[in-house]
Amino acid sequence: MDFYSELYNNFNKSNTYTAKVISGKHFGGKLLFHNEELIYTNLKPLDLGYIAAIKEVTQNNKGQVISYEDSRIFCEPITKKPAIVICGAGHISIALIKICKLIGLEVTVIDDRPSFVNDGRQAGADHSICEPFISALSKIHSDSSTFFVIVTRGHRYDTDCLREILQKENAYIGMIGSKVRVKRIKDTLLAEGYNEEVLNNIYTPIGLKIGAETPEEIAVSIMAEVIEVKNRSLKCSEFPKEILNEIIGESFENNPTSLATIISRKGSAPRKVGTKMLICNDGRTIGTIGGGCVEAEVKLLALDVINTKTPLLKTVDMTGIDAEADGMVCGGVVEVFIEPIF
Amino acid sequence: MDFYSELYNNFNKSNTYTAKVISGKHFGGKLLFHNEELIYTNLKPLDLGYIAAIKEVTQNNKGQVISYEDSRIFCEPITKKPAIVICGAGHISIALIKICKLIGLEVTVIDDRPSFVNDGRQAGADHSICEPFISALSKIHSDSSTFFVIVTRGHRYDTDCLREILQKENAYIGMIGSKVRVKRIKDTLLAEGYNEEVLNNIYTPIGLKIGAETPEEIAVSIMAEVIEVKNRSLKCSEFPKEILNEIIGESFENNPTSLATIISRKGSAPRKVGTKMLICNDGRTIGTIGGGCVEAEVKLLALDVINTKTPLLKTVDMTGIDAEADGMVCGGVVEVFIEPIF
Repeated sequence: MDFYSELYNNFNKSNTYTAKVISGKHFGGKLLFHNEELIYTNLKPLDLGYIAAIKEVTQNNKGQVISYEDSRIFCEPITKKPAIVICGAGHISIALIKICKLIGLEVTVIDDRPSFVNDGRQAGADHSICEPFISALSKIHSDSSTFFVIVTRGHRYDTDCLREILQKENAYIGMIGSKVRVKRIKDTLLAEGYNEEVLNNIYTPIGLKIGAETPEEIAVSIMAEVIEVKNRSLKCSEFPKEILNEIIGESFENNPTSLATIISRKGSAPRKVGTKMLICNDGRTIGTIGGGCVEAEVKLLALDVINTKTPLLKTVDMTGIDAEADGMVCGGVVEVFIEPIF
Repeated sequence: MDFYSELYNNFNKSNTYTAKVISGKHFGGKLLFHNEELIYTNLKPLDLGYIAAIKEVTQNNKGQVISYEDSRIFCEPITKKPAIVICGAGHISIALIKICKLIGLEVTVIDDRPSFVNDGRQAGADHSICEPFISALSKIHSDSSTFFVIVTRGHRYDTDCLREILQKENAYIGMIGSKVRVKRIKDTLLAEGYNEEVLNNIYTPIGLKIGAETPEEIAVSIMAEVIEVKNRSLKCSEFPKEILNEIIGESFENNPTSLATIISRKGSAPRKVGTKMLICNDGRTIGTIGGGCVEAEVKLLALDVINTKTPLLKTVDMTGIDAEADGMVCGGVVEVFIEPIF
């Protein structure tokens, strides 16, 4: 089984880490770790010094380039976009589901009313549960990266949801409601013995204060708040699941592709280290590494890499005179590693 | 020509105002004003006192109920959702177009590259212009409610766009760019003689600060900022164009419908005065007046109104014991006026 198949199998687990040799003797070498154990490499023979050098930086939890002997190695923790669980499938939820899918989150919607859950599915939810909220939530496995949004049709259901969710690992709990309604729910739970600080950490009234009026505007305010919380502690790029799906062969009909990754950045380049773009030999792409000038150039190089089947490390300097002439001074310098996928 | 046809014809003009008699002798009477002139009424005979009473409040620019003799009249300025012009059709724009259409804005996208403009059309843009930015913008008529978003592929094009847009009426100018790039553009324009305060009013770097990383996240941050600016001075509900289109007969296949409007509100009801929902006789709806308990009840009443062809004014008290039993204490009291459309 190859590197990306192994990565795909470990994608939903945390503590997955990759390292790619981007220059030097073992140029093109790849290593995949899970829970600090090496589970795949194409390096032959395997110099254990690579492993030691890589393990020194895994705790940093961010994409970075290290040196080992004559090689440079791009090390990267693999983080997937988080899951979001939406309780209630009314107007706000439907709009929120659509925006969450645009952002790339994995969406679960819960409601006890079949036609509403069906609307949620139509809107794009990955998973849907049509059951009373308490039993539905008891079936959900969450972790410290899961987002919970409570937007049911009444405060009794909101309260039921909150009690269940407070017992689950989560990155965020947001709850709809007027100040009056929210206070009533918090007071109820306080009287039941729930911890006051935990209750105060609930994001409620939900969403950034942007004066949102309609359900769609409220959905945008919630999405903005979720993004803010998600990215507050985000040190490395989330690996887009759709790229991995393509690599495993789902939509580009097994056409040859290459994968471009930003492995270092200086100055004001738009996208951070770890950002990826997949290029198909017919020019179609998934993801973006910043648009404009960088992307156009990288796309051409990526098409070459598909033909040569040889990886390439390229420095793209966006502060140059050529870029100026085209009106495309973005500022900054990025190194992009392009690897053939076959 | 009837009331809603006249309203449809005047919908894109500002200073359009409606008044509906919701109780008293002329219950069901309607008046439509444009630029302070009466252009439609079904009141016969027409007591000019109505006009005088209504004109006293048009300056308030918000939905409100007034009294005249034994009648109550719901007066309402007609505001449509604003237009947004997006310069550039790259990754951020494509995501932004989709979210703008979810929100209900009228979207124009401009780019000089045909395939990119086509992507913008596919994403849902209402209008698209494939020309150099300067000539494209010169063709755009804007007013004080138009939003401009500049997200082209390079700072020269951004600057070209900005020069054109600064000469146009607008509600908002937002421009993408790093601090370095944005400063460079502002300095260029300052040196050309543009007003410093005007330049400082440009929203740049664009979007709310939510740590957005991907184009889709940036689009959400821009949408949130646009909503905040749009609603900052919004005193009355925007009249949803899709409801007017339905009334004029576009999609409900001329099935009978009724229109529900919130005409007054006390307490913590979720939606403001002027909010509308159209109900078709087969149960389909467009828009929402708050979801949950209120909406379910209003929907049933609206179906009755379709049958009786008689308007109805209903007070919905959401603080009652019945609502409590269903877990649906929303709080607040609303009056909803439901009128048959035929």
